[in-house]
Amino acid sequence: MGKLNELTAVDAAAGIARGAFTAEALMSDCLERVGQRDEDVRAWAYLDPDHAMGQARDADAALERLQARGEEPAPLHGVPVGIKDIIDTDDMPTENGSPAFAGRRPSLDAACVAALRAAGAIIMGKTVTTEFANILPSKTRNPRNLNHSPGGSSAGSGAAVADNQVTLALGTQTGGSVIRPASFNGIYGLKPTLGMIPRSGVMLQSHTLDTVGVYGRCLDDLALIGDVLSAPDRADAYSFRGSRPRLSSALAQDRAREPRLAFVKTPAWPEAEEEAQEAILSFTASFGSACTEVDPPTPFGQILNFHATVMGAEDLAHYAPLLEDSPDLISDMLKARMGEAARIPADSYVKALLAREKLQQIFAALFEKFDAVIALSAAGPAPRGFETTGNPIFNGLWTYLGFPCVSLPLLAVKDMPLGVQVIGPYGGDAATLAVSRWVERNGKA
Amino acid sequence: MGKLNELTAVDAAAGIARGAFTAEALMSDCLERVGQRDEDVRAWAYLDPDHAMGQARDADAALERLQARGEEPAPLHGVPVGIKDIIDTDDMPTENGSPAFAGRRPSLDAACVAALRAAGAIIMGKTVTTEFANILPSKTRNPRNLNHSPGGSSAGSGAAVADNQVTLALGTQTGGSVIRPASFNGIYGLKPTLGMIPRSGVMLQSHTLDTVGVYGRCLDDLALIGDVLSAPDRADAYSFRGSRPRLSSALAQDRAREPRLAFVKTPAWPEAEEEAQEAILSFTASFGSACTEVDPPTPFGQILNFHATVMGAEDLAHYAPLLEDSPDLISDMLKARMGEAARIPADSYVKALLAREKLQQIFAALFEKFDAVIALSAAGPAPRGFETTGNPIFNGLWTYLGFPCVSLPLLAVKDMPLGVQVIGPYGGDAATLAVSRWVERNGKA
Repeated sequence: MGKLNELTAVDAAAGIARGAFTAEALMSDCLERVGQRDEDVRAWAYLDPDHAMGQARDADAALERLQARGEEPAPLHGVPVGIKDIIDTDDMPTENGSPAFAGRRPSLDAACVAALRAAGAIIMGKTVTTEFANILPSKTRNPRNLNHSPGGSSAGSGAAVADNQVTLALGTQTGGSVIRPASFNGIYGLKPTLGMIPRSGVMLQSHTLDTVGVYGRCLDDLALIGDVLSAPDRADAYSFRGSRPRLSSALAQDRAREPRLAFVKTPAWPEAEEEAQEAILSFTASFGSACTEVDPPTPFGQILNFHATVMGAEDLAHYAPLLEDSPDLISDMLKARMGEAARIPADSYVKALLAREKLQQIFAALFEKFDAVIALSAAGPAPRGFETTGNPIFNGLWTYLGFPCVSLPLLAVKDMPLGVQVIGPYGGDAATLAVSRWVERNGKA
Repeated sequence: MGKLNELTAVDAAAGIARGAFTAEALMSDCLERVGQRDEDVRAWAYLDPDHAMGQARDADAALERLQARGEEPAPLHGVPVGIKDIIDTDDMPTENGSPAFAGRRPSLDAACVAALRAAGAIIMGKTVTTEFANILPSKTRNPRNLNHSPGGSSAGSGAAVADNQVTLALGTQTGGSVIRPASFNGIYGLKPTLGMIPRSGVMLQSHTLDTVGVYGRCLDDLALIGDVLSAPDRADAYSFRGSRPRLSSALAQDRAREPRLAFVKTPAWPEAEEEAQEAILSFTASFGSACTEVDPPTPFGQILNFHATVMGAEDLAHYAPLLEDSPDLISDMLKARMGEAARIPADSYVKALLAREKLQQIFAALFEKFDAVIALSAAGPAPRGFETTGNPIFNGLWTYLGFPCVSLPLLAVKDMPLGVQVIGPYGGDAATLAVSRWVERNGKA
């Protein structure tokens, strides 16, 4: 039947469950696509086709046994997922994007990988990450245009899903590492509320920011994998402690009323390209009275600095052993960045943490009046060339606040995709996905 | 009947409730004692005898009305309490121990003061604090020997309770500001779990350390006022979120078995005076097999530095507006301290926060095996002279961990009191008080 690799995860899972095709056939199409494109796109840090096919055949055999007993398969049965290479897997290396971890073989799956396997997913391979999920550009190319960056740090995950090499993928975000690649590669991405997806077994660089996120081909794909992954993590002080409404249930409901949307330019606005500004202004204008421009009060103007301060200080604390033990294996770009971070005084970091509490209260009041915030997903489309992974300035502020963010591939600038970002309140991931569906159906680019 | 001011809070409240004496008579005895001693002890930042007597007479009148209706008075009805002068009161100035706040009149009671009033307590006056509850020595003298420091920063609260000028008092602890004055002045002190008592309306200097605590003349006094004050604080991210067993109920129960005690010398041990070391060694030896010396693993050895880093960084962030706005009104001692804090790099602070999580886990495991930790309350008795408020080195580590600490006035060195510190697990305040009773009854100095 061909091109199973282009299916959404929802359709892939349903097709396998009802016997329309096998997990093996799906994996075979994915691997064929990888074979055609890997030399150009370079999305994989580790991919053993035999191991991937073996897992798919095992899934097909398991499904036969399940169905013989009259049981339903798990929600991701047979669906291939790519895992960013800072997330531990017990059957593949996890090298954290750095020669300092070359050949490293974790003995345990990360909690999120274990949850995927329990849900029937096939862990297809490890996707390329920038060095430690930081900013050093990776080898991966943007499948929409090979002369452009795929973004970072979840470069391979974003590119592989966009290029139909894999159905779903995991990323992580500390600055803009989930939403930016979603925007640059023209796919759907969800950076959930801080701590919504367990972090045990994920390399941390900034413990108050690092968030595991997901990529898919539609909102239902994000909900499908998001529900599988959403769970408390007892080992993590930053795990989300509140209630966890199901994402797929929220998406399935038709909204009773038009949402109230707040368009927030953010202090990053002057750094956005003019065509990106025009695109989002025109898009938000298409909502008429449902969308109002809002400029949150002080200290919102300093939020970009606060994020940079928090990330710099925490990165340095987490990287210190590496910088001491393997200085020759750390990039000059990261060393320079850590040299700057070493000059951050502790009281600036404390102030940035205290300001976060204040800003979270300001936004809690804003979310009493609005269902979601709309903003650009990135300052512009994927940059041409590979000097940088692109500007994460439209993402770090939301990561700092811990709020759920969705990127919708609804805009285009200079023949490249650009995302619309939908941001919701802390813990409001399900409602934010539902608003995102309304935005997707009703907005005009 | 005379000397009502020497009663415990439990006896004072019971005597008033059953009509054995009036709140007015109790206050009159307290004020008489203040009149005799204030020139020497100097425990009060603000005390208006007429206002105090007026409140006491109002309490007596209210009690008559209550009893005419057959109702019981609230647990602290008519009992005088001294309030450290960094805690807001709506009827008295709150000057935070600094000319920068001279004449400041808050419009609202702090949440803990409001709770005391609701429980029938008489807010007798404001007790002397060091500048901003930091380390600049205050005017207060130690009532046990006027040539010695009363400790700090809750100097007036500790001295006034010890000198029978007031029945109970509130203090706060960031380093050792509740437990050290309890030890130096020979009274009972409780620094509860971080966030057990609401902090709204208390001047903060270090938001992950600052803890409101209480002074009394016996363990039952601590339980009586502690139960009145224990409540969540919605406005405070560090408010304790767990269950809150009643302190007085825990104290009232006879322990079914001997507690298992861990004597921890702590990395501060080399700074303790030799006679203080001998006193605590002899005291813990008196428990025989019920007490075992324990030396927690790495990174416990660095805990003194971690506390200093956290306190320095947070103090500087909180004091920054004051240092900018009123530099001439800030002491040179505090300026020098903040000059040092400005050199703390942010990543050291981050590491100190991360180490706290690890150390809390280490102690959680320790508290599976032991009911409480025993340690010195201070490095020695109150120092002679007023150059410093004494060494808080036996306290900051426990404040850093957020654990409840009780100081029992059971030892003496050089004719001055010295406390035994009982430390319990996070949230285990009630059980820690119960162990403290056993320690008091069974330990031999």
